[in-house]
Amino acid sequence: MTQATPMVEMWRGDFLESAHSGHAVICDAGGQIVQAWGDPDKIVLSRSSTKMIQALPLITSGAADRAGLSTEQLALACASHNGAAIHTRRVEAWLGTLGLSDAALRCGPQMPDDRTAREKLICDHGAPGQCHNNCSGKHAGFLTLSHHLDAGPEYIDPDHPVQRACLEAFEATTRETSPGYGIDGCSAPNYAASLHGVARAMAHFAAAPTGSAETRLHEAMRLHPDLVAGEGRACSELMRAMEGKVAVKTGAEGFFTAILPEQKLGIALKIADGTTRAAECAIAAILVKLGVLESDHAATRKRLNAPITNRRKVQTGWVRAASALL
Amino acid sequence: MTQATPMVEMWRGDFLESAHSGHAVICDAGGQIVQAWGDPDKIVLSRSSTKMIQALPLITSGAADRAGLSTEQLALACASHNGAAIHTRRVEAWLGTLGLSDAALRCGPQMPDDRTAREKLICDHGAPGQCHNNCSGKHAGFLTLSHHLDAGPEYIDPDHPVQRACLEAFEATTRETSPGYGIDGCSAPNYAASLHGVARAMAHFAAAPTGSAETRLHEAMRLHPDLVAGEGRACSELMRAMEGKVAVKTGAEGFFTAILPEQKLGIALKIADGTTRAAECAIAAILVKLGVLESDHAATRKRLNAPITNRRKVQTGWVRAASALL
Repeated sequence: MTQATPMVEMWRGDFLESAHSGHAVICDAGGQIVQAWGDPDKIVLSRSSTKMIQALPLITSGAADRAGLSTEQLALACASHNGAAIHTRRVEAWLGTLGLSDAALRCGPQMPDDRTAREKLICDHGAPGQCHNNCSGKHAGFLTLSHHLDAGPEYIDPDHPVQRACLEAFEATTRETSPGYGIDGCSAPNYAASLHGVARAMAHFAAAPTGSAETRLHEAMRLHPDLVAGEGRACSELMRAMEGKVAVKTGAEGFFTAILPEQKLGIALKIADGTTRAAECAIAAILVKLGVLESDHAATRKRLNAPITNRRKVQTGWVRAASALL
Repeated sequence: MTQATPMVEMWRGDFLESAHSGHAVICDAGGQIVQAWGDPDKIVLSRSSTKMIQALPLITSGAADRAGLSTEQLALACASHNGAAIHTRRVEAWLGTLGLSDAALRCGPQMPDDRTAREKLICDHGAPGQCHNNCSGKHAGFLTLSHHLDAGPEYIDPDHPVQRACLEAFEATTRETSPGYGIDGCSAPNYAASLHGVARAMAHFAAAPTGSAETRLHEAMRLHPDLVAGEGRACSELMRAMEGKVAVKTGAEGFFTAILPEQKLGIALKIADGTTRAAECAIAAILVKLGVLESDHAATRKRLNAPITNRRKVQTGWVRAASALL
């Protein structure tokens, strides 16, 4: 097994204070590796970074079209959102069209990351609902599919038709037999694959024909970057910086994926220690390297060669990509 | 240079999802290594984990006794506190005895980690002050020393007599010439040393005679664990679990130190990727290994072999120490 490659350095003054290693694969439309760092065969849980795979059966089953889902709803099905009003209002309205409410969700409540929404809840002595959960759009998609299939309410059960369809989509796009699953933060099964398999799935999305389920999903993500994440978030800011030409998606524990339709390339990235700050820097470095992200764009400079400042706004150091990513 | 040693594993279901490596040294009163993991010679910034060294000149100069500082104030001088009322009221009162206010501090404002204090500030539309900064007790100590030395107000300047005294204490206790410094989150210089040097300094504290400045400081920490950190925090909970027999202190970017007076041992630990969750698990594992912390105490089980639960309280995995620490 190949060791993880040093990817991100945290400098304080003249000292390299902390460092992050990781694994990454860039894959082409034929499923072949274009470039890799670390171990492409590493078995990973891609977490929320592959929500677009979990949304595939929603379209291929006919459920999305029967329900008349908009591109905004498809973007939300692929989102890890901030729980801002722009997200929760749309999810609540979506559940309403199914004759359902917050109580039908199985993702659990989550205090929103969006500052306005969070502070309003705190000061109103309110409690977050399941619609605030960053995965509520994905779960609204699961409920839409479950309704279409006339299946039971426990749609996160691995034996439920919704999750069986997700596994089928996962194995079809990664072109691997999944060795198993972990339970995700939102209680849905999260299927394991090799990192190469995840990159292969992203390349499959990138090379899919116009009008296909895959293309409709990454188009929706690129069209609505604010719905995929939110204010200040890497996914939204990087997609905007790339003018919607590339879809990127974060996942818990230092995961990132990217779909590059023009280049017909897919990327999967895992920071070995699970740190988001490193995943954001590393994916930005790889996108710059591929020529699809400007190195001097504000969204890039916030994550790659980003100054570290302290509580008096004094610059104390830098976040830098390691030489392997340059 | 020796590689970092695998120390902490994050399991999700049957999958090792993320892993943390680190460096650690246990040192005896003679400055010799009892046990080490990774590279003892690694140059590190020990950040807040060595605040007790920065507090030494406060006592050795005579400033603490002239100001009549209590053990509570000495504990606060070594603290990275939550900014709860128990902390900020004491720091404000301390500044008052010097004829000073929040404005004399140079640590910068910080939103408190303490939930009650934070939510009160948010709902009152207030802004955090410098007293809320987790380092405000250390800075009140700096101001006390500065007042005693009749020195200027910019006490965080590396050329200021307060910081020169801190460097002298740092080099005396680590028994090394520091290769330089980084600027800390609170704007004070943070001097570099080898990890062995930091452990040697902690062993120096552990073996110091009754009534010495060193002993007065670690006694104050062990006597007032809630003032050193706060509700729910590792330092407070682990010190209480060890019935005040051991002083432990966290530092940013995955640092931890421990002072074991009965055993006359010192510990310094650095997680290479800078992650707090791993530092807390690893220091707990080492303290269990040394027989000073019960493996089945609630404070231990919260960090070592701790269940990971999701937003519906479903257990999804485990935080485990790697074999090297068992």
